[in-house]
Amino acid sequence: MDNEEKYVEEIADQEDNFSKWYNQVVRKAELADYAPVRGCMIIRPYGYAIWENLQRLLDARFKETDVVNAYFPLLIPRSFLEREAEHVEGFAPEVAWVTRGGGEELEEPLAIRPTSETIIGHTYAKWIQSYRDLPVLINQWNNVMRWEKRTTLFLRTSEFLWQEGHTAHRTLDEAEERTKQMLEVYRAFAEEDAAIPVIAGRKSENEKFAGALRTYSIEAMMGDGKALQAGTSHNLGNNFAKSFDIQYLDSDGQRKYCATTSWGMSTRMIGGLIMVHGDSSGLILPPRLAPYQVVIVPIWRKEAEKSAVLEQVARVEKMLKGKVRVKVDMSENTPGWKYNEWEMRGVPVRMEIGPRDVKNNSVMLVRRDNRAKTPISVDALETHLPELLEEVQQALFQRAVEFRKQNTYATDSYDEFKEIIAEKRGFVRVKWAEDSAAELAIKEETKATLRVIPFDQPEGGVQGKCIYTGKPATCEAIFARAY
Amino acid sequence: MDNEEKYVEEIADQEDNFSKWYNQVVRKAELADYAPVRGCMIIRPYGYAIWENLQRLLDARFKETDVVNAYFPLLIPRSFLEREAEHVEGFAPEVAWVTRGGGEELEEPLAIRPTSETIIGHTYAKWIQSYRDLPVLINQWNNVMRWEKRTTLFLRTSEFLWQEGHTAHRTLDEAEERTKQMLEVYRAFAEEDAAIPVIAGRKSENEKFAGALRTYSIEAMMGDGKALQAGTSHNLGNNFAKSFDIQYLDSDGQRKYCATTSWGMSTRMIGGLIMVHGDSSGLILPPRLAPYQVVIVPIWRKEAEKSAVLEQVARVEKMLKGKVRVKVDMSENTPGWKYNEWEMRGVPVRMEIGPRDVKNNSVMLVRRDNRAKTPISVDALETHLPELLEEVQQALFQRAVEFRKQNTYATDSYDEFKEIIAEKRGFVRVKWAEDSAAELAIKEETKATLRVIPFDQPEGGVQGKCIYTGKPATCEAIFARAY
Repeated sequence: MDNEEKYVEEIADQEDNFSKWYNQVVRKAELADYAPVRGCMIIRPYGYAIWENLQRLLDARFKETDVVNAYFPLLIPRSFLEREAEHVEGFAPEVAWVTRGGGEELEEPLAIRPTSETIIGHTYAKWIQSYRDLPVLINQWNNVMRWEKRTTLFLRTSEFLWQEGHTAHRTLDEAEERTKQMLEVYRAFAEEDAAIPVIAGRKSENEKFAGALRTYSIEAMMGDGKALQAGTSHNLGNNFAKSFDIQYLDSDGQRKYCATTSWGMSTRMIGGLIMVHGDSSGLILPPRLAPYQVVIVPIWRKEAEKSAVLEQVARVEKMLKGKVRVKVDMSENTPGWKYNEWEMRGVPVRMEIGPRDVKNNSVMLVRRDNRAKTPISVDALETHLPELLEEVQQALFQRAVEFRKQNTYATDSYDEFKEIIAEKRGFVRVKWAEDSAAELAIKEETKATLRVIPFDQPEGGVQGKCIYTGKPATCEAIFARAY
Repeated sequence: MDNEEKYVEEIADQEDNFSKWYNQVVRKAELADYAPVRGCMIIRPYGYAIWENLQRLLDARFKETDVVNAYFPLLIPRSFLEREAEHVEGFAPEVAWVTRGGGEELEEPLAIRPTSETIIGHTYAKWIQSYRDLPVLINQWNNVMRWEKRTTLFLRTSEFLWQEGHTAHRTLDEAEERTKQMLEVYRAFAEEDAAIPVIAGRKSENEKFAGALRTYSIEAMMGDGKALQAGTSHNLGNNFAKSFDIQYLDSDGQRKYCATTSWGMSTRMIGGLIMVHGDSSGLILPPRLAPYQVVIVPIWRKEAEKSAVLEQVARVEKMLKGKVRVKVDMSENTPGWKYNEWEMRGVPVRMEIGPRDVKNNSVMLVRRDNRAKTPISVDALETHLPELLEEVQQALFQRAVEFRKQNTYATDSYDEFKEIIAEKRGFVRVKWAEDSAAELAIKEETKATLRVIPFDQPEGGVQGKCIYTGKPATCEAIFARAY
């Protein structure tokens, strides 16, 4: 067999055409496909296995904060959506409507949920009577639908999978605390499990959730320097409680409105993984989310070598079972083909086992991220491999931190700002007076949006003038072009 | 505090009014609620936690048979549903239709999936080229919608959660083998995890899935003697492959149609759990599916006793963490109230810890199923408790087997058959000539339906005449009234 054999189809160069590269990787790695209904996607087994890992790890993080799961219905009466004024304005244009069911026209059209604040608000109003019923801390994993004109697999599709958490509290302070707590859960998940560095902070008034008091988000930098909003957490204040009459009898005998929150992360995150870690050979998956952490490629030249190699492969596979997610590639392809295939599909570590390795009772490990090769004794594998995977996990995170650092600019000059946005790529950090009109003007003039006002602000407050208005700055803000 | 305090609200007597009892238990145990959209349900956290346990255990059983998960879209073009003639006839009357999206009327109405054979068939036709691509073994966990006129929480709702597996094979034999394999997975799950004895077998032509060659099912007996179809597995033969052109190039150079299968289990199973195990005090949950396997109730009379009790409770909780699912009830209610509350909610084992228990370094364990009380040393808990839970699991299964035995009849007389169906309750096993007209006549005359033709048939074949037609019997069949 020929290890040098070239993988047949090439993928586009990242530098050259990032979005073409992205779409090719998604399709070739068999992560997802377009569905026959416009804008909808099919998540293929390899892509869905990433989602399952994300769900398992994120769900465990939720449960550590006392959140429990439930399920609310897919269909929402039109009248519910209309009850919160800003909310309906934000979502109505994107709604898909059910108008017929069981052979009859419906009296009231039903929305396929674009998000569930309204139906959950209606339900909480019935469940919550007393301060003893609070807090309510519920999450659901489900599908939602927002009719999109332009779609990209994982990043923007009409139907997508996500989780939406909805909590109700006694006080505004408690709701604010929970809102920030869940953003911190997202930050920890993104950085520790997805190896994606993020900037946590507050959204501007223009960019906040329709109906929220305040929206917080984590923003990540993709491989082309654009921003991706990777998770959001909303303090809804009393807005939805007032629209849906979510009241409780407090210990002082007074009826009071609850304060509520909501927070979500979606299949979009898979798009983020691809765009942060991938390279010109394809996908690179962080070990904690990779469907297969290690792929074993058996190698033999002569038929006589085959059985000893396969015996060793079986032994190693058994040894690692339950400790590391292993795939043995027993297909009829050549080893060279397999190397390219699994590189393209982003498996963090490849393990080669050939006749010489069998003789030495060793295997060859090859890292996907830096292609470093290390021969290692089979006896040391059980200990070494989990350590190596952790090392890869950390290396991917550090590389992404470094990339973000290299592509983050600070400037006090709007001319320079425009130049960076137009000719370079990445994030621009500026002094800012929180003026909504200025924000819209910048978007109009440069296509850059205010991504986030980071929690991390200069000690002692911001000195100086807003980059656009010249008014005294109240904070520093991150601008970038975004997905 | 008063351990004898009565739980305030009583629930209906099972013998008296089983369906009232069922509905009360579902609502009082906070398993589910009706949604504002007719026929849809909200699965509350306690009910959803059962579903999560079911998902985890059933999904692991699927994966042991090499099945992988994926996600196909919610919306299906009308033209797809119409392609398989029997299928559209079976499902069209129950479909909910999306006719508007993004502010515009759609050119073609889109069905909310009632099941996904059609869209998956369309997709498999694109994915499958060669015999090397086979078998395809995919499952999805999702929501489906069938517009129902009369609904009951969990048992029949317009929207429900389920899993639907869809496989494609090279030969009809292989498809038949997979169909039976997945039915065996359901049988094992039902009996071993849900502690529900089931009868596995084949459905009659009248009762098979719309578009299937053959449908197999597992049927369980509920506490009122009625049958519940708890899982189905369909051999679709070449029917969907022909309608959707799922072909592959075989090793002999010929293009051939695939043989496909589909199989599903739904949130209905939670209804089954309630109706098989519950008693007049409420729910009884089998330990493997129970959200909480053990509830700890701390007891103290004087304030001075409180801290020692709570210390011991914390110690025991910590000791059991990760080994047993434990809930500590720290609410302000009395112990007596808590006993009744958690009995009603079906927690398999209650653990009482009071001042005397602390002194003896022991706890009192009380089984939900038979109310047996056993004091046990704290040091023995880690070993004893998992054993006790396994004992409860087995006892529930045996009790259900015994109940089914007592309520299963065999007769060769149609008059006696009618009498049993009208005046007793349970399953009736009869000799049967597989005549569809006779089956419909029996349904008309008695409301009993042919539930299943069990795999378990008399050795050497069935002797004698069909109970209805008098024709030579070809098999034995189970009839019952059903959910």
